Amino acid sequence: MTQLLDLVGIFVFALSGALVGVRRRLDVVGMAVLASMTALGGGILRDLVLNVRPAAFFSVGYVVVPLAATVIVFFWHPHVLRVMPVVNVFDAAGLGLFCAVGTEKAMDAGLSPLHAVLLGVLTAVGGGVLRDVLSGQVPILLYDRQLYAVPALLGSVTMATLYALDLHGWPATLSAAVLAFGLRIAAVRFRLRAPLARGVTPQE
Amino acid sequence: MTQLLDLVGIFVFALSGALVGVRRRLDVVGMAVLASMTALGGGILRDLVLNVRPAAFFSVGYVVVPLAATVIVFFWHPHVLRVMPVVNVFDAAGLGLFCAVGTEKAMDAGLSPLHAVLLGVLTAVGGGVLRDVLSGQVPILLYDRQLYAVPALLGSVTMATLYALDLHGWPATLSAAVLAFGLRIAAVRFRLRAPLARGVTPQE
Amino acid sequence: MTQLLDLVGIFVFALSGALVGVRRRLDVVGMAVLASMTALGGGILRDLVLNVRPAAFFSVGYVVVPLAATVIVFFWHPHVLRVMPVVNVFDAAGLGLFCAVGTEKAMDAGLSPLHAVLLGVLTAVGGGVLRDVLSGQVPILLYDRQLYAVPALLGSVTMATLYALDLHGWPATLSAAVLAFGLRIAAVRFRLRAPLARGVTPQE
Repeated sequence: MTQLLDLVGIFVFALSGALVGVRRRLDVVGMAVLASMTALGGGILRDLVLNVRPAAFFSVGYVVVPLAATVIVFFWHPHVLRVMPVVNVFDAAGLGLFCAVGTEKAMDAGLSPLHAVLLGVLTAVGGGVLRDVLSGQVPILLYDRQLYAVPALLGSVTMATLYALDLHGWPATLSAAVLAFGLRIAAVRFRLRAPLARGVTPQE
Repeated sequence: MTQLLDLVGIFVFALSGALVGVRRRLDVVGMAVLASMTALGGGILRDLVLNVRPAAFFSVGYVVVPLAATVIVFFWHPHVLRVMPVVNVFDAAGLGLFCAVGTEKAMDAGLSPLHAVLLGVLTAVGGGVLRDVLSGQVPILLYDRQLYAVPALLGSVTMATLYALDLHGWPATLSAAVLAFGLRIAAVRFRLRAPLARGVTPQE
Repeated sequence: MTQLLDLVGIFVFALSGALVGVRRRLDVVGMAVLASMTALGGGILRDLVLNVRPAAFFSVGYVVVPLAATVIVFFWHPHVLRVMPVVNVFDAAGLGLFCAVGTEKAMDAGLSPLHAVLLGVLTAVGGGVLRDVLSGQVPILLYDRQLYAVPALLGSVTMATLYALDLHGWPATLSAAVLAFGLRIAAVRFRLRAPLARGVTPQE
């Protein structure tokens, strides 16, 4: 179950990466690279920190799913763009799932709750940061229009708390993911933003 | 023999990195950083994924060769630029060697052929991606004018196939490298490109 | 003692990261990300190369100190900017401490002096490179106006030499750090620069 949710998260993140590739008029190789990095980058960074071999290099699904997303975007990107609001909902779902799963794996590996939360957030946002850096943009994470890291933080804290209370398994994971997902959707809907330093006006 | 080929690959990749430093008018430190990252970055990323200490931090040659390339470019870059077509041939040779050696090391470490191929491509293109990101450019890999990742993919698939057939050793490595090299040279010669998503026109 | 020096280095590096966040008008999340990456990035890269779990994910201080720096900059950045020359002195201190501590840890882990020096320099400059890449700038390291990597190199070489002479402990670390610090301060004061390749004029 958790694994299925994980693959869904990878798929929607890969869609968003491949679409950035189309928008920047990259060829199919660039699309596949961006799709894979967006989908797998966060998990790879997490596993490097945990000092284990990245799961992406041991699972067939992790390789095939981003390529499938690339093929879909390659042939039907106008249709994908038309359902982009739906993709954004999926992206929020991916964010929620990745922060919950990342925090869980970090707790399993013996990190403190504080550090597990950090690593959960890194898992959730790392792929997007790599996508933006590779495609030559300042990571959207840093601007965080409409709260992006904060929902991941909420989901990670929830997961770490549940885990510390000995509540494991996919119901706990899903609850944390749903919370993060909900806050992210609310942030997009109501344009919630993180504050800027005193006296600083937002960038255009 | 394989080791000698490896050092040749590192040397030509370092030349290309140091030349980017000259073109961007960086000082000798920037040149040395770009030369080293271009030459060693792919192998370092590969070793991080394989969860072993990067070979670059245990071999003297891996440190000295990029510095030698930096010194050469520092003093004689106009001559190096004049023989740049030759350097491009060497770069294609480096690409071929790195994808073959990377795939081999990944198979040695017990990865599946599918994942060994991925890691082989990462070894071949990783250094160039780091060079481009550090020097503030969108990685040339993403545009892939004149097929860059695809030859590496061909070389990696060849290497993994030979390895799976129990054909090890430097003749196998060299065959895979030569195939990748040949396709890369043909791609430059005949301007072979990967396709763009349906209805997308190439960037200028 | 070494640990206290380490936290001081982290604090001043985090200040510099958070200030870049203010200058680029990022929100508090972006500021915290830049502060943490600047302060912890070099050490994380070092630990990844040494194939151990990054210290940043096992120490509470390493997480709290960059956040404290972010809070200070968030509320009092005009005051921080006014004392910026002081912050630059601290930054030079951080550079010195990080190269010395990084080289020491690398020697402890059994690297050769040559490679320990490289890793010491990576520890010192890695965080700044990540800060610059994330905020969409070419790393200041590459331009190296007023020698940045060279003082780190001097400090690392000193540390490796002392270590090879069996001179361990914080007096050795501090000596190496002070040397690097002194050269960095002198470089800023007297505008010392690394040379450019023959016939190349510096960028504007």
